Formats: sequence, C-alpha cells, structure tokens
Amino acid sequence: MRALIIAAGNGTRMQPVTRGQHKSLMPLLGLKIIERVILGAREAKIREFVIVVGYRGIQLKKYIGNGERYGVRVTYVENKNWHKPNGISVLLAKKYFKENFVLLMSDHVFDPSTLKKLQRLKLKKYECALAVDRNLKSSLDILDTTKVMVKKGKVTNIGKNIESYNAFDTGMFFCTPHIFKVLEKTTSIGKNSLTNGMNVFVKRGNLRIFNNKDKFWADCDTYKDIKFAEKKLLASLTKSADGSISKLFNRKISTFMTKFLIHTPLTPNIISFIIPFLAIFTFFILAIGSYPWLLIGALMIQFLSIVDGIDGEMSRLKFMGTKWGKWIDPILDRYVDAIIIAGMAYGYWNITGNNFILPIAIFVILADILQDYMSSKFVAITGVKLITSDIPFKRDTRLLLLALGTITNQILIAFIVFILISQYKVVNRFIAAKLITEKQVSSRIQQV
Amino acid sequence: MRALIIAAGNGTRMQPVTRGQHKSLMPLLGLKIIERVILGAREAKIREFVIVVGYRGIQLKKYIGNGERYGVRVTYVENKNWHKPNGISVLLAKKYFKENFVLLMSDHVFDPSTLKKLQRLKLKKYECALAVDRNLKSSLDILDTTKVMVKKGKVTNIGKNIESYNAFDTGMFFCTPHIFKVLEKTTSIGKNSLTNGMNVFVKRGNLRIFNNKDKFWADCDTYKDIKFAEKKLLASLTKSADGSISKLFNRKISTFMTKFLIHTPLTPNIISFIIPFLAIFTFFILAIGSYPWLLIGALMIQFLSIVDGIDGEMSRLKFMGTKWGKWIDPILDRYVDAIIIAGMAYGYWNITGNNFILPIAIFVILADILQDYMSSKFVAITGVKLITSDIPFKRDTRLLLLALGTITNQILIAFIVFILISQYKVVNRFIAAKLITEKQVSSRIQQV
Repeated sequence: MRALIIAAGNGTRMQPVTRGQHKSLMPLLGLKIIERVILGAREAKIREFVIVVGYRGIQLKKYIGNGERYGVRVTYVENKNWHKPNGISVLLAKKYFKENFVLLMSDHVFDPSTLKKLQRLKLKKYECALAVDRNLKSSLDILDTTKVMVKKGKVTNIGKNIESYNAFDTGMFFCTPHIFKVLEKTTSIGKNSLTNGMNVFVKRGNLRIFNNKDKFWADCDTYKDIKFAEKKLLASLTKSADGSISKLFNRKISTFMTKFLIHTPLTPNIISFIIPFLAIFTFFILAIGSYPWLLIGALMIQFLSIVDGIDGEMSRLKFMGTKWGKWIDPILDRYVDAIIIAGMAYGYWNITGNNFILPIAIFVILADILQDYMSSKFVAITGVKLITSDIPFKRDTRLLLLALGTITNQILIAFIVFILISQYKVVNRFIAAKLITEKQVSSRIQQV
Repeated sequence: MRALIIAAGNGTRMQPVTRGQHKSLMPLLGLKIIERVILGAREAKIREFVIVVGYRGIQLKKYIGNGERYGVRVTYVENKNWHKPNGISVLLAKKYFKENFVLLMSDHVFDPSTLKKLQRLKLKKYECALAVDRNLKSSLDILDTTKVMVKKGKVTNIGKNIESYNAFDTGMFFCTPHIFKVLEKTTSIGKNSLTNGMNVFVKRGNLRIFNNKDKFWADCDTYKDIKFAEKKLLASLTKSADGSISKLFNRKISTFMTKFLIHTPLTPNIISFIIPFLAIFTFFILAIGSYPWLLIGALMIQFLSIVDGIDGEMSRLKFMGTKWGKWIDPILDRYVDAIIIAGMAYGYWNITGNNFILPIAIFVILADILQDYMSSKFVAITGVKLITSDIPFKRDTRLLLLALGTITNQILIAFIVFILISQYKVVNRFIAAKLITEKQVSSRIQQV
C-alpha cells in the first residue's frame, strides 16, 4: 500500500510560532508532526510514500530525506502552485498511483489503528472513503474543521461551512485512482480544492465513511491546536487492557512524567532497566520495617507502579515499540515485584522476628509471577488466549495492595490476602483452561 | 486420511497365553495391542479405520465397537478365509479406498510420529511406501521378522527368508489404490500374501521406503515379543528435550514406576495434582533444618524431580496427552519448586538464625520461574522459540543442585549458585532475544 501526503501549503495560521520552519516540522511530543504522519502510517504497514511539497519544500525534503531512517521509501513531487488550493497537489501525484492508496494531510496526526482498518475497506471502482470522527467534541477549532454529514455510511455533505453536520473529517482518505479523473474535471473549471473533488463523490453517493471511534486524531493548524493535540495524544496512551487503578490514577501521573522525559535522550529500554534499581533502593527502605520508613516505602511501591507505564508510553509515543521491549518489560517487572516483596518481608521480620513470613513471602512472589506465567504459557501451548471472567488482579492492583499493607503496617495480612486472591484466580483459570482446551479438541474432531 | 488394519489371522504363536482372546487384544502397558494401533494412528490425525477381521472377529468387534470411545470411526470387513495369507484381507477392503491410505498390521505397534511423516510422502500412481527400521538390533525374533533390502530409497528385496538385508519391515505402509490391482493379479495365481503383492512393486522399483529412525515400533507375535515391546516402549518415553540428569537417571526410575502405575486407576492429571502434596510433606522435613532430616529432605527433593516425569509418561503411554495437561504440569512444578525452596530456607533460618536467607530465597524462586516464563512469554509475543546456546539449567539440574545443597548442609551456597547460573542465563537470553527480534524485523522489511 502506498500513501500520498500533501504538504505544500504555507500554514499561515501557524506562522507566528514556526520561526521560518515548515508547519509540519513543528514538534509534537518529541517528534515532528510530519514524522508522526509517516511513522503512524508505517505502523499501519505502509512503506512507500509520495509527498507533495511546495512552500519551504526544500526544508522538508532535507529533514525527511529518502525515508530510510524511518524504514520507508519517500518520493517527492513539487507543487509550484502551492498557494492554490490542495486539490492541485493531489492531482500532481497522479502518475504514482495506479492502485488504491491512502491520502493523508501533513498536518493531521492520527492513531495507526484507524489507518490499518481504513485501508482494508473493499472499495468499488468509483468510490472513496473518509475516516470521520462522530464525537463533535473532538475538535478544538470548530470554525476551521472540515465538517461532514453522514447518512447510512455515506457522506451526504462535506465542507468547512456546511450548516448541519454530525461528524468531522479526520484527514485520512482511502482512495481509488478514480479521484484523479474527478480532480482533473473539477480543477479544469477552477474548483481547485480536495473538498471540491470530494463533493463530486458525495453527489454520486460514492464517498463512504470509516468510523474513527474515539481513537486519537488531531488537526494541527495553530499553536493552540498543537497543545490540544499533545493533551489528546497523552490521554490516548492509556491502554484498554489497563487495570482500573492504572486508568484512574497511575496513567495520569505517568503520562505527565512521560511528557517531560520524551524530550530527554532516555530511551524506553533504558527506562525499563533503570526501574529495577529504584526498586533496590526501595528494598533498603522497606527492610527497616518501622515508621516513618514504612510510609516512604509504601509511597515508593506506588511510585514504582506508576513509572512502570512510562517505558511503554514513550515507546508508543515515539513509535519505538519492539517485540523485545514488549517481552523484556514484564520480565523486569517480575524483578521489581520480587525486590519489593523481599523488602517488605525482611522489614516485617526485622521488627516482629516472626519467621513465618518467609514461606509466605515465597508464595507471594510465586502467586505474583503465576498471573502472567499462566496466561503466556497458555498462549504458547494452545495458540489462543486464556480468557477468564474472574476478578481483576493486575499489577496495578497487586502493587496497591502491597503499598496499603506497608502503609498500615499490616504486611502479613496484605501477603495473605494477596495469596488468597491469586489462588482463587489460579483455580478459576484451571477450570477455564480445561473448558477452552476441551472445546478446541471437540471442534477439531468435528472438522475431521 | 483413512487407515486399513488387517486383523484376521489367528496368531498361532501367541495362543499359549491368549486364553481364547484375539491376539491383538493382549494387553501392552495398560492398553490392548489393537488399541495402541488405533490410538497411535489417531495421534497421526487418522480418524477413519477399516478393520479386516476373521479369527475371533466378533470378539474384536465387540471390544472396539464403532470406534466412538477412541474418537474415530471404525468399519469392519469380514474375511472368512482368515486362515489364508493376509493379501486376501487387504483385497477384501478394496471398495473403501479410492485414495491413498495407510495400511497397518493389528499386531505392529509404533510411534505416531513415524506414521505422521509416512503419510506425507508424495506417491506416484503406481508406488507404495514402507516404513523400515535400519537398526538391525530392533527386532527380537529375527526368524519371524520380515526383512528388507534397501538401495537408494527403494526396496530391492523383501521377505522373511531373504539372505541379505539391511532393514526390517515395521508393518506400516502408505499405499496408492493401485495395490488392489496388484493383489487381484497375484491372488489370482495363488500368491496370496501381502509380501507377494509387495514383490510386484519391488520388481518395478515402485516400493519406496521411509526411515523409522530409532523411533519405537514392535511386532507382537509371541508373549516374549510383548515383553520386549514393553521394554522398548518404556525406553521410548525419554524425551529428546530432557536434561541429561533426567535422561541418565530420573527416567530410568520414573518409567519403572510408570510401568506399575499404568495398571492403577490413577490418571496422569491426578498424579500431577498429588505431587504438590508430596512437596508439602517435604517442606516440613526440610523445615527442621538439621540431620538426619536434611538427608531425608534431599532424597525427597530428588524423588520429586523423578516423579515429575510420571504424569507425562503415563499420558503418552495411554495417548491421554491434552494441551491442558501440558499446560498445568509446569505450573504445578512451580508450586513444588516454591515449596521446596521455602522449606530449605526455613530450615536454614531455623538452625542458623541468619535472616539474609529470606531475600535470597525469594530470588531463587524468581530465578526458577523465570527460566520457563521467559521462554513462554517469548513464544507468546513473537510466535517463535527463544533458542539460546548457553549452559543447560533445566529442572532436573536445578532440583539436583538444591538436593546437593541440602544433603551437604550448604543451603545458602546452593541458593547463591542457583541465582548466579540463572542470572547468567537471563542476560544471555536478553541478548539472544534482541538478536532474534531484530532479525525478524529486518526480514519483514525486506519482504516489503
């Protein structure tokens, strides 16, 4: 799949802050806006790009180059009439697109998952598709946003100044090459904008929509837009798989920290490896076992729970996510957990002298690791996920329980509760796994 | 894929011990011989069987039934001339086989993996294939074994009485329907055995071989044969993935125990769940911390290491292996490990009062679980195995180290060695995983 990015315009409204830079070279959380467009599309498996440049095009070409350092191939098309509307830019790239392609704006950033799905639509020869956002609070600057009226999966009206609308244009199109024929006609009669072209599709009922569904997107026309995009982008870092303590509390703080760390030379992997050292520091505080150290230790446990999100957030923000990072992160988490549990147990023993804590602590760390071990092992053996409907006891909850046990000086009770909840979950999973594997077998027999 | 099993003969040489039973209904380690044939083929994904019965055919039909309880479909063909050679039995089943099929003997048991591969051969229209064993020590009764001369992947001579040979006939054929045409011709001139038919293929250079390569197989013609098969079958339970302590020592004892347990109503899963209770018993012995309990504790640790093999052996022996069992076994192993480590640490503390053992013990259990957790997690995330070329530190070695530490009263040292070896392996895997995932990414880019 190829993508066409139009980046010729001069971005008048951004000029007060660009200081002579191309608008899409403005930074947005550690990356230039255009880099977010390219890397976002790359994550949606697009590897070939044509960028139409005009105003300060040399600057843009110099910065992006042939795309090699992004792992993609970039070709440039020059639009000397960049001061005219953007339909002309699209038309200039005609010769590069003989098949369906993705059309993107250099100033519209987005969540790759939308683009991934958008390009899977089966378009008919004369159709185009537009990703729209039906949440009318998703745009900051209503006046400058292209609005869309959607009825039954088709766009019935589009434009910045239409009166009734129920969605916003997110700037992501999936096009058939038919768009060039349409633009040839419209530009020949002086209607030079992409919206003019799209209106031809609209009139024939050929502009389909794809619902962006609360995924991140932002149009960056002004400095205010960029700040708004920053906020939305940080908020989008919360994962649907996050536990509720993480969603409600941890992510708010970790994304705040990420916002600053993203501008440092620290990479996500370095952060992953720093955290266990913070845990060792926590161990020595917890090992004292008495107030006020218990209070500090508890805060440190919660802090370790919070910073656990940062490496993932940074790698998603910078499109640096690797399978290695995804693998190493939970392993290092287990180290951190073990260090915390060891510190708590040692501190408890230090004060009470009760050596019953020793086997208990060993079962806490066993229970802790089993949570993810059982799931991963199940995937490795059966190829499917082990889905159970029992109480959530993710890492955010587990560490909160340990922090609460520490702060209230009830470490033994916290450990026992930890083990009981985990064991309940283990039994639950034994049963769920049995049902899933038996279903697999019987469905395989039926296939035969 | 369908299979034809010929079971019409009267098995004269077995009669002293059959007590009126059909020969293939003789037991072999907890299953009847014919059940081993059917379940072995089932494991090689064969679900439809035609069995040619004759002598005591009603008995056999009554026992096996329609195959439902084996998860297969069985159809019977009656051979009233069962006293004549076995080529006639094959010919009688002609109408059931319009496509390539597997031909098995009711008294030849085998390793399913051979059959799995045999049926993947691409046969030409006039060919047949025979699985052979080139290890000339693999048969007990040379006189009664069908011998084969193999040259360049083809059989050049076959028969019980040929003079020069370099392989044995294992009784597993993969046939084209052409075999029926050949048998029609040979039986019409009074040459009624399967070997007569095969000789026609041999003469035309159309009998290919498949090398059984040291996998288990046995021909059960006499009581002595069955005892020999028992021995070979038990020896075949050692897995190639086993650690060397397991191969050299543990398996010898565990298969000996399995041989007896297979005749009890205990299922593999019940055994899996009994073992942790033995571990709890071991905990209390280890927790005392002094001689002679250390000696008993050490022996118990090694015993737990040995019995770990039994559930797997029983499930393989009885074809009861399930993905659930494969998943639950390592999880319960982690419980056993944790209980042993807790017992050792507690005993050490009990005697020395050195509470430094507490954090150490927690890192031993962490290190123990990480071994398999890291591998499984890697498979779950990347879809490929994490292969490293570092020192082996499988469960058999780990438990031996713990047993040695206990018996020599050097628990702390054993724990520290345990952690050091594990950490060395963890670092090694971090590096190996990085290389593997980077290769994956670059090969994916090249594909694009």
